[in-house]
Amino acid sequence: MKGYVQVYTGNGKGKTTASMGLIMRALGHDFKVYMGQFMKGKKYGELKTLKKLGVLVERFGTENFIFTPEQVTDLDIKIAKEGYKRVEEILLSKKYDLVVLDEINVTTFFNLITPEEILHLIDIKPKETELILTGRYAPKEVIERADLVTEMKEIKHYYNDGVMGRKGIEG
Amino acid sequence: MKGYVQVYTGNGKGKTTASMGLIMRALGHDFKVYMGQFMKGKKYGELKTLKKLGVLVERFGTENFIFTPEQVTDLDIKIAKEGYKRVEEILLSKKYDLVVLDEINVTTFFNLITPEEILHLIDIKPKETELILTGRYAPKEVIERADLVTEMKEIKHYYNDGVMGRKGIEG
Repeated sequence: MKGYVQVYTGNGKGKTTASMGLIMRALGHDFKVYMGQFMKGKKYGELKTLKKLGVLVERFGTENFIFTPEQVTDLDIKIAKEGYKRVEEILLSKKYDLVVLDEINVTTFFNLITPEEILHLIDIKPKETELILTGRYAPKEVIERADLVTEMKEIKHYYNDGVMGRKGIEG
Repeated sequence: MKGYVQVYTGNGKGKTTASMGLIMRALGHDFKVYMGQFMKGKKYGELKTLKKLGVLVERFGTENFIFTPEQVTDLDIKIAKEGYKRVEEILLSKKYDLVVLDEINVTTFFNLITPEEILHLIDIKPKETELILTGRYAPKEVIERADLVTEMKEIKHYYNDGVMGRKGIEG
């Protein structure tokens, strides 16, 4: 079965969680799953559950919150580039049926990884492996190459009411 | 902690899977989770994983595929209405921290459940319970009442290439 390239982008909720749902479906069919999370250092609740289910999860980020490209440190760049190398290795190993690269789209906005580097990952992906790329700011080159692209659009958000990062819900 | 009402709607992918990701996060914090799925009778891969994790999943649908309101049978109506009663019971029991009502938005389009009935579920929801309502065609009354609304917008889809329902990925 051909594996596709799926992109979840946009400013709304549900990009990372959608990829986690895809993981659950895949596990229901005993697929082997890898998830690499870029720009995330903080522990999120989902990690515990994913590990319990036998998913290999790795994180390539610092504890820094980065809002603009100017805030990026050398350490952020180093860790993202190491993550990229690791993910390349994972794809070349051909061991995984589903590979989720969470927030990798965002890394292009912050100049940590280039759109061309993401295209290279698509190129080396085993034919049968499903590749999921999440995060805002998906570059147009990646959207053009992907098989399926969904934009999560924020219509209404309670952050506007000053609520943020609720335990067990946001992460 | 106040529980919110979240809506995932639109014609794109990721509505059900996003709710499954929210379930994984919630389980990471040992929350009690219920998922009721409307208009779904077929077995999906995710059910196996969800049950393994201790999530109570119930389905209120037939094997019929319904594309237009004219195709709805008496059995579809009966099962949806029974599901509605069951979900009412679940919310009133106050036993669950996270309640996902998958595809409930769609039931309003097919005249199985009314928008007012969904508003009633929001009314009786325990204050601390997070309520997730997924599916296309979320009625405007429900969107108005929700705390968080995300529209999944299809930008590009491989269905256009004639691929459908791939095992382990679509369900």
